[in-house]
Amino acid sequence: MTKHKVVFQPVGAKIEVERESNILEAAAESGIYINSLCGGEGVCGKCKVQIIAGEAKPTSHSIRFLSREEINEAFVLACQTEIRDDLEVWVPPEARLEEEQILTTESMVCYQAPQDLEVKDSLDIPSLLYMPVTQKIHLSLPKPSLTDNLADLDRVYREIRKKIQAPTLEISLPSLRSMATMLRENEWQVTATIYPLDEHCIEILSLEPGDTCAENYGIACDIGTTTIVAQLVDLRSGAILGVEASHNQQARYGEDVISRMIYVCSRGGLSAIHTAVVEPVNAIIDTLLEKQGVEASNITALTAAGNTTMTHLFLGLEPCTIRLEPYIPTANFLPATSAAELNLHLHPNARVSCMPGVSSYVGGDITAGVLASGISNSPQISALIDIGTNGEIVIGNNEWLVCCSASAGPAFEGSGTKCGMRATRGAIQKVGIEGEKVHLSTIGGAKARGICGSGLIDAIAELFRNRIIDASGKFPRDSDNPRVRKNEGDMEFVLAHGDETETGKRVVITESDISNLIKSKGAILAAMRLLLNSVGMSFKDLDRILVAGGFGNYLDVEKATFIGLLPDIPPERIQYIGNSSLTGARMALLSRHALARANNLARQMTYLELSVDPNFYHEFVAALFLPHTDMDLYPSVKRIMGS
Amino acid sequence: MTKHKVVFQPVGAKIEVERESNILEAAAESGIYINSLCGGEGVCGKCKVQIIAGEAKPTSHSIRFLSREEINEAFVLACQTEIRDDLEVWVPPEARLEEEQILTTESMVCYQAPQDLEVKDSLDIPSLLYMPVTQKIHLSLPKPSLTDNLADLDRVYREIRKKIQAPTLEISLPSLRSMATMLRENEWQVTATIYPLDEHCIEILSLEPGDTCAENYGIACDIGTTTIVAQLVDLRSGAILGVEASHNQQARYGEDVISRMIYVCSRGGLSAIHTAVVEPVNAIIDTLLEKQGVEASNITALTAAGNTTMTHLFLGLEPCTIRLEPYIPTANFLPATSAAELNLHLHPNARVSCMPGVSSYVGGDITAGVLASGISNSPQISALIDIGTNGEIVIGNNEWLVCCSASAGPAFEGSGTKCGMRATRGAIQKVGIEGEKVHLSTIGGAKARGICGSGLIDAIAELFRNRIIDASGKFPRDSDNPRVRKNEGDMEFVLAHGDETETGKRVVITESDISNLIKSKGAILAAMRLLLNSVGMSFKDLDRILVAGGFGNYLDVEKATFIGLLPDIPPERIQYIGNSSLTGARMALLSRHALARANNLARQMTYLELSVDPNFYHEFVAALFLPHTDMDLYPSVKRIMGS
Repeated sequence: MTKHKVVFQPVGAKIEVERESNILEAAAESGIYINSLCGGEGVCGKCKVQIIAGEAKPTSHSIRFLSREEINEAFVLACQTEIRDDLEVWVPPEARLEEEQILTTESMVCYQAPQDLEVKDSLDIPSLLYMPVTQKIHLSLPKPSLTDNLADLDRVYREIRKKIQAPTLEISLPSLRSMATMLRENEWQVTATIYPLDEHCIEILSLEPGDTCAENYGIACDIGTTTIVAQLVDLRSGAILGVEASHNQQARYGEDVISRMIYVCSRGGLSAIHTAVVEPVNAIIDTLLEKQGVEASNITALTAAGNTTMTHLFLGLEPCTIRLEPYIPTANFLPATSAAELNLHLHPNARVSCMPGVSSYVGGDITAGVLASGISNSPQISALIDIGTNGEIVIGNNEWLVCCSASAGPAFEGSGTKCGMRATRGAIQKVGIEGEKVHLSTIGGAKARGICGSGLIDAIAELFRNRIIDASGKFPRDSDNPRVRKNEGDMEFVLAHGDETETGKRVVITESDISNLIKSKGAILAAMRLLLNSVGMSFKDLDRILVAGGFGNYLDVEKATFIGLLPDIPPERIQYIGNSSLTGARMALLSRHALARANNLARQMTYLELSVDPNFYHEFVAALFLPHTDMDLYPSVKRIMGS
Repeated sequence: MTKHKVVFQPVGAKIEVERESNILEAAAESGIYINSLCGGEGVCGKCKVQIIAGEAKPTSHSIRFLSREEINEAFVLACQTEIRDDLEVWVPPEARLEEEQILTTESMVCYQAPQDLEVKDSLDIPSLLYMPVTQKIHLSLPKPSLTDNLADLDRVYREIRKKIQAPTLEISLPSLRSMATMLRENEWQVTATIYPLDEHCIEILSLEPGDTCAENYGIACDIGTTTIVAQLVDLRSGAILGVEASHNQQARYGEDVISRMIYVCSRGGLSAIHTAVVEPVNAIIDTLLEKQGVEASNITALTAAGNTTMTHLFLGLEPCTIRLEPYIPTANFLPATSAAELNLHLHPNARVSCMPGVSSYVGGDITAGVLASGISNSPQISALIDIGTNGEIVIGNNEWLVCCSASAGPAFEGSGTKCGMRATRGAIQKVGIEGEKVHLSTIGGAKARGICGSGLIDAIAELFRNRIIDASGKFPRDSDNPRVRKNEGDMEFVLAHGDETETGKRVVITESDISNLIKSKGAILAAMRLLLNSVGMSFKDLDRILVAGGFGNYLDVEKATFIGLLPDIPPERIQYIGNSSLTGARMALLSRHALARANNLARQMTYLELSVDPNFYHEFVAALFLPHTDMDLYPSVKRIMGS
């Protein structure tokens, strides 16, 4: 078969591939990951690259994503372009999937436990701190004799039972195989790591020489669709020793869960996509251990929270049935497994638990969030909103909980937007508009490269407040604002001119971007209205709103209310609670009661399937305005903007 | 390194080995297994082979095992002879470890359940038949819909719970991984194989397409030091579909458990010796499956009974601490494991359970025997005696059980005796002596090749009854019996002349053989006396004696009593119960109650460590007579022989 050489610039990565391979796959093979929201389906138009030597033609299908200018400059969609010549390809920065996430001091905040108060509220400290998933027990065994001739295993069991209540004890054959020698070589001084399977049965995960009780660590992990964050936790004190984050490398197979499921189900990519989530988790673990000087063999537990698709892919379960009606996951309550089974860089017998989910679209991350937020401990009516590609909403109190999920699209994640980008260095995160002046704040204080979700919300709120757009999100056709212009058939607002940006290209916000974001916020608001309706309530019944999610840290709650993403209740009753998925995972790691409680919560929550609710479309359409068709729902906005 | 060629005759097996390898190991490498009771330690003298071409000298150490004639005919001990020349070696039939055990119709009997009456006595039939270790349940699952949107796993659990009580259900990650596709490809018609971990928790071992409930099989296995026997059992009906036996291939590393432990512990041979027991178990399984047309994937459970050393080696546990004071096994209660973990040819998730033992020298075979014999169900005082290389004795009733073990040596297994052989084709099993006439019965009716344990007991009883030997087992120096002769410094009795045997060599019984057997029977009788003493009883308190063990089928109970191996109680109260270890294993396979009962029995039995009993030596010496020093203990013998 004919082969062709391809060089990817500016990195200079070279690869030889078979004729008719596509550029996207060739790039991945050479180690260059090109942004592809749709997973190579040719529908997102994000993987634009420039052919700088050799010949490659855009397909007729992909031409609609390219401007006339781009076609003239030999841009093509990487995923839609077959290689039929030796090529040199320029991968522009905006098309490049960054391999390193820059954690600014600011963004670190959301990875620390910002709501320890909440954690303490929701669980009494003693049970939280002293019932970790795994425990180490030092055993000082009496030497056997003719009069005390118990078998080794019974001797170990007897000593454990002196320290804890354990009706049934279990051990695996591999652990048993090394027991006789290990006990004798270490003068009968050993440490057992135990894991209670249930209240009746305790499993001995390992026996190791000497007294290692001082070193027992766990990992709490939030497996986000975009970002993976993990904490190293001391299981004795509950202290967080470190936190690290990384991209979910699955992004190379598609930006959102739907694209990734398609990749798995129509291209047989389960193994690759499973590896692509395990690898960054291992990379984070390696970094945490190295920085804290902790041995992998002393990590005896990991608790992970993620949405249902992420949890399935992390465990290597087929996600295909999640995507299609009637939306059935393989499991909501996941069996605990061992680190060895997932190739995680921990003690091979370390227990890996996943937070339980409620349904295909309300996953373990939400259960973890409910656990962490403590909303189920109070008679107050609370709403927990986790905003990402999906917006999951839980409403309830200590007596009842209802939940649902709305597909919000990628706008809040900084994607699906002309100049959108993730909340990393150079992303515009805050926008202020006063007259003709635009004030921008970027992550890391760097030159602007694009705009992330919170920046977009800010920008739209400011455009609306300054009446540069109207309530339907449109620029008046007679706008005299010098930053408003028409380009490629779309109206747009220039946030940053070319000389203000890193790429030299303007950062704009288009009418399409605004329309997309209005659809996204409309879906979430409609979902919340329906969920409230289902229990005979409305916005005013909400005592508090807790906002969680990856971008939440930069989110201006008042501006989010102003555009109608959040209900109009007094801002002091709206609170950002950070990465509650991670906090919940840590709670379950530190407390078996918390894990049991999470299981009960997952069972308790009543799931409302919006896709079959006949009122959803009506509510959705009514929410496609800034802030809403019914201005009486937004008295604070009405006061400022008039009716 | 220099290499030498060695050919083993009469098979003609060729091998090239390094200079200074020994002949025993070279033979094993070429696939010829030479009898070596001591595991190559040079102390049993059983591995005599003849050098027919090339040169090899016996060592000064080994010369004591060789007669002058043998030295002249170039016999050497295989284990003590280094290869320093190209050799042709003759392996005589008596030195060859047979690879196939010939199951005559007669010997088949002991592998069938001879004591179904006992089995029925000891457990009520319904619980026995309908509570096998594993169960299959056919699940006809309703298809999921938007209104019945349980996750696949919950759907499976719900259906199982409709059929059985199962507070907690568990499944392994690998089983879960294939679930989604499997359920849908098979139209939601599947069969679950379940295994109750305890009364609270049930594990799903596998899910398979369709309704396979009609095919659920198990293997009951007796892992003897010498012979492995297994039955294929229909787990639904309890029917035995087939039985097969094989040598325990560990014999190549030593005849008895002590030699094998030495091999493991001083030569690091655990892996080899573990394989040497798993291989014949697999060979038996393969044969059973082929003969009965059963698929390995439908074998979902195996229950094994063996002495403590065999159980350890079967599971790959270190046996070294069993051998040395204070005689501590790694475990008496063994964790259940999977077929995959032991590389057994069953369904990879099939549950493998081992019968629990009491101590290092009263193992799971004895617990199984107690279970099968039903002695713990009756107020009658019973003794269960399992006679092999060790003689294990259990005495008790439905209220108490005491047990001990006596090292009997290999005489009852047909080894450690000049013309001894195992109970296979050509072994003299019955001996009658009337005047100068000797009547022999061999296994399979073949020409005599040697004498097995039961034949030896018969012969000694007959020699004693005919006063050819005296009560101390000696031939009178003035014996005029033409079959009594002196040879190589030892007195011997010719059972079969050269023209009557297959090998052309005489089969004799020597004074040393008789002395060895008296020591063996003395150890067992002494153990029984001490065990009875420990509960303040004597022979006359025994309501019945049940004899179990490999050779038991040919054992003449009256003759065994006559020589003082068994207590002198009326013969109708002594019963042979066959391979009770296998029967017990089958009971545990068919009934979880029986397995639980075996666990309780193992806990209940009080173990008496004879090696530290100050009275043992006294009792042993007193028993070194035919039948005993105290003839009042043997009134029936006294009547025949006078005092």
